[in-house]
Amino acid sequence: MYVSETKIRIHYALTDQMGVVYHGHFAQLYEIGRTESIRQLGFAYKDIEALGIIMPVVNLQIKFFQPAKYDDLVTVKTILKEIPHNHKIIYNGEIYNESNNLLSTAEITMYFMHAKEMTRANMPEELIGKLEGYFE
Amino acid sequence: MYVSETKIRIHYALTDQMGVVYHGHFAQLYEIGRTESIRQLGFAYKDIEALGIIMPVVNLQIKFFQPAKYDDLVTVKTILKEIPHNHKIIYNGEIYNESNNLLSTAEITMYFMHAKEMTRANMPEELIGKLEGYFE
Amino acid sequence: MYVSETKIRIHYALTDQMGVVYHGHFAQLYEIGRTESIRQLGFAYKDIEALGIIMPVVNLQIKFFQPAKYDDLVTVKTILKEIPHNHKIIYNGEIYNESNNLLSTAEITMYFMHAKEMTRANMPEELIGKLEGYFE
Amino acid sequence: MYVSETKIRIHYALTDQMGVVYHGHFAQLYEIGRTESIRQLGFAYKDIEALGIIMPVVNLQIKFFQPAKYDDLVTVKTILKEIPHNHKIIYNGEIYNESNNLLSTAEITMYFMHAKEMTRANMPEELIGKLEGYFE
Repeated sequence: MYVSETKIRIHYALTDQMGVVYHGHFAQLYEIGRTESIRQLGFAYKDIEALGIIMPVVNLQIKFFQPAKYDDLVTVKTILKEIPHNHKIIYNGEIYNESNNLLSTAEITMYFMHAKEMTRANMPEELIGKLEGYFE
Repeated sequence: MYVSETKIRIHYALTDQMGVVYHGHFAQLYEIGRTESIRQLGFAYKDIEALGIIMPVVNLQIKFFQPAKYDDLVTVKTILKEIPHNHKIIYNGEIYNESNNLLSTAEITMYFMHAKEMTRANMPEELIGKLEGYFE
Repeated sequence: MYVSETKIRIHYALTDQMGVVYHGHFAQLYEIGRTESIRQLGFAYKDIEALGIIMPVVNLQIKFFQPAKYDDLVTVKTILKEIPHNHKIIYNGEIYNESNNLLSTAEITMYFMHAKEMTRANMPEELIGKLEGYFE
Repeated sequence: MYVSETKIRIHYALTDQMGVVYHGHFAQLYEIGRTESIRQLGFAYKDIEALGIIMPVVNLQIKFFQPAKYDDLVTVKTILKEIPHNHKIIYNGEIYNESNNLLSTAEITMYFMHAKEMTRANMPEELIGKLEGYFE
């Protein structure tokens, strides 16, 4: 299992008139978490795109327990339970506020795709190499 | 069952560098669909907020089959299968492009809450009245 | 002078916790106005991109007089005072609410650029042809 | 003069299909810069709102010289040239990429307003106190 944590400061444009982060914007928080989890491996999501591979989201499931508020410094936990064996990768996520309250959980499924042909691809070998140590 | 349709033109800020609508922004398309479905009943979501009731999203599930693209005139179908009997309402949604391809489906669960006390509320009677004719 | 009007319904994600449309999102309202002003000529902004030309914004000036609110049906007036003679085009914009109060004005400067070479381009001939009738 | 610097990582949702940060989203980058400039003084923008004062933007002027790209770690420089003597505050901003190229400059004017009465207010005394040392 590979687990990574990223802190994100909630800025004004993420709030709505309910006085909390707009629910759809949680997708951005989870995405930033995934990006930083890859960076913490010494890789970058833009390196994946530079290989001609994109990762469209095919399934997004987010549960909301408590609101995130303006200026909260939330922690996004990004969890990869399995190394993908084919074109499909499933991420789990959790978001906590500074009081360590669980605000939200998510399961997000993405495909590796060749950007030009829009056909299914595998996870790049370089990235598998970076991840293997976390999965005995 | 109450079904409503709304057309939305995809504008530039909804796209990302993959050249398609950013996945998280589909939450906005489904929300516009819900808002217009209420308006088509002769009510308005802001009337609900004026009654001191808010409707936070507690569960968001979106599946993505094909991308939505800049300037597409998509149709959002908003489906209410049951009148809520308590604080919980479940919406289903479908998004189609102009070629009638199904781009995405969603199931979105919201709670009716008293905005001040942040306690559970029921669907406003006025809105139930507008909906009853669609459910025998 | 070519003047065009477009109506836009303010949706939830455009609001912030001040209870009004987030100031930065007015750029989107003005952009939708420009896009629709081109469509009303029988052309489309995506036709311009299909010609290999993009139109990056180089200068954005927006004044805010009154807030736009959730569910307002605002009118965006898009004004082109001169046909561009080179790579530069200047749009003026005005936004009104349903009570005809002026909420905002803008002056937005864009360049026509060849997308691949990122060199300056002229306004496409087809678009000039559509516009000439409005400028004697 | 009070100058402050903040680093922001460009995330995916800020990009558009031109492959660069959407022009309207620069307002968010400048806003994050302002927020962090206040935090670096030992204050917080939410403390200002807690005093019943809001700061709507009344004038936004942004110039764009070079695009900001996905995953860029940009530096936002926030500059306050004068302590406001009335309800009006003018910020200047500059955004640089990692190669120290100037991407954008801005001048942003805000008003201090009493949130309830929507009447003009002055800058809170606490904030003036924090700033005075920077202006002899």
